[in-house]
Amino acid sequence: MPTERPRPAQPIPPHAKKVFAGVIFDVYQWEQEMFDGTTKTFEKLKRPDTVVVIPILSDGKIILIEEEQPGKSMRTGMVSGRLEHAEDPQDGARRELREESGYEARSLTLWTACSPVSKIEWTIYFFIAKGITCVGNPELDGGEKITLKPVTFEELIEIASHPDFIEKDIRHFFTEATYDPKKREELRRLFDPTTL
Amino acid sequence: MPTERPRPAQPIPPHAKKVFAGVIFDVYQWEQEMFDGTTKTFEKLKRPDTVVVIPILSDGKIILIEEEQPGKSMRTGMVSGRLEHAEDPQDGARRELREESGYEARSLTLWTACSPVSKIEWTIYFFIAKGITCVGNPELDGGEKITLKPVTFEELIEIASHPDFIEKDIRHFFTEATYDPKKREELRRLFDPTTL
Repeated sequence: MPTERPRPAQPIPPHAKKVFAGVIFDVYQWEQEMFDGTTKTFEKLKRPDTVVVIPILSDGKIILIEEEQPGKSMRTGMVSGRLEHAEDPQDGARRELREESGYEARSLTLWTACSPVSKIEWTIYFFIAKGITCVGNPELDGGEKITLKPVTFEELIEIASHPDFIEKDIRHFFTEATYDPKKREELRRLFDPTTL
Repeated sequence: MPTERPRPAQPIPPHAKKVFAGVIFDVYQWEQEMFDGTTKTFEKLKRPDTVVVIPILSDGKIILIEEEQPGKSMRTGMVSGRLEHAEDPQDGARRELREESGYEARSLTLWTACSPVSKIEWTIYFFIAKGITCVGNPELDGGEKITLKPVTFEELIEIASHPDFIEKDIRHFFTEATYDPKKREELRRLFDPTTL
C-alpha cells in the first residue's frame, strides 16, 4: 500500500525560481546543464494534489457521481477534489466525501497514488471509503452540480474500463479485471463492504 | 481513424487572457460565471502538442528508445517530441523520427490521438511508421542521449502494458491485447510491416 508521495522522475531542483503564481498552477524555471556543457531553461509546474474517493455502500454498490461544471459537459466520475494548503490527503478525502456526497466513512484506505504528468508536480491519491453513513446534504459550491450514482461492482468495471472514463489513471485496474478472473477477484475483495 | 484534434471538455474561451507565457506552458485565465450567478477566476494552460512515432522495421521489430535526459533517470520510451510553431503533426512526426532515430518512413499513419489532461490544451498524436530506411545518424541536441531498442511484437506488448511504461495513454491497447486474442490480432495487423 503506497503511503508516500511518488517521487517524480525529474524533481524541480531547489534552486528553481517560481516565475508565475496562478490560481491553480505555479510555474518554475531553472537553468539546466545539458550533456554537452551548454545550459537551457527548463520549466515545470506545481499544482495542488488531488484526492479521489470511492465510497462503498453496505449493499456493495459503489457511489459514482454525475457532475456538471460551468462551461463543461456532464460527465460520470468519482468524488474528487483539490487538497487545501498543507492538508493531509486523508483529511482532504474525508472533506471532499462529506462536501460532495453528504457521507462520512468509518474506514478510509489509500488504494493507490500516481503522478500522471511528468512536467507537473501533482499527485492523485485514490481512497476507498467503507462503513459510510449519510450525515447530511452535500455542500456544493456555485460551480458544482452533482448527482450521486450508485452502481454495482459489475457496472463499475464496465464504466471505469471505458476509454471515456474520467479517472484514466486507474482504468488499467478495471481493464485487467474485465479479462482476468484473478484480478477481478482482487478488486472484488478490495471493494467488499464487509471487510474494512 | 481520428484526423482532427480531439475537442477539449472545457475549451479555453475566446475572451480568456494569457497571463503568463513560459518556455513550454502558457497560462490563461478568465472570469467564469457559476451556476449561482457569482463569478470565479478559472485557469487553464496551453502547451505545444506532441507526437509519438512507432517505427516498424521490415522484420517486424518495433523501435523503442532508451532515453536519458539531464536531471532525469533513464527510461524506455518511444520516439517523440514537441511540435514546432504551426507545424503539422505528420511533418513533426517525420522530423522527430529523423532526428531521434536517423530513419525515414515511406508510410506514416495516425493511429490515435488524445488530450490527457483536462486543464491543459495539449494533444498527443501517435503515428505508426512503416517502410523505414536509415538515412543517417540521429541529430540529437545537447539534452538528449538516445539508444535505439528494437523489440519484437510480443516484447512490445509486455513493455507497453507495464504500469511504468512512459506512454500511459496507449497502455490500455496493450493491456487489452495481453488478454484478448481478438484485440491482439488487431494490434498485430496494425504493426504488420508488410501492409502499409
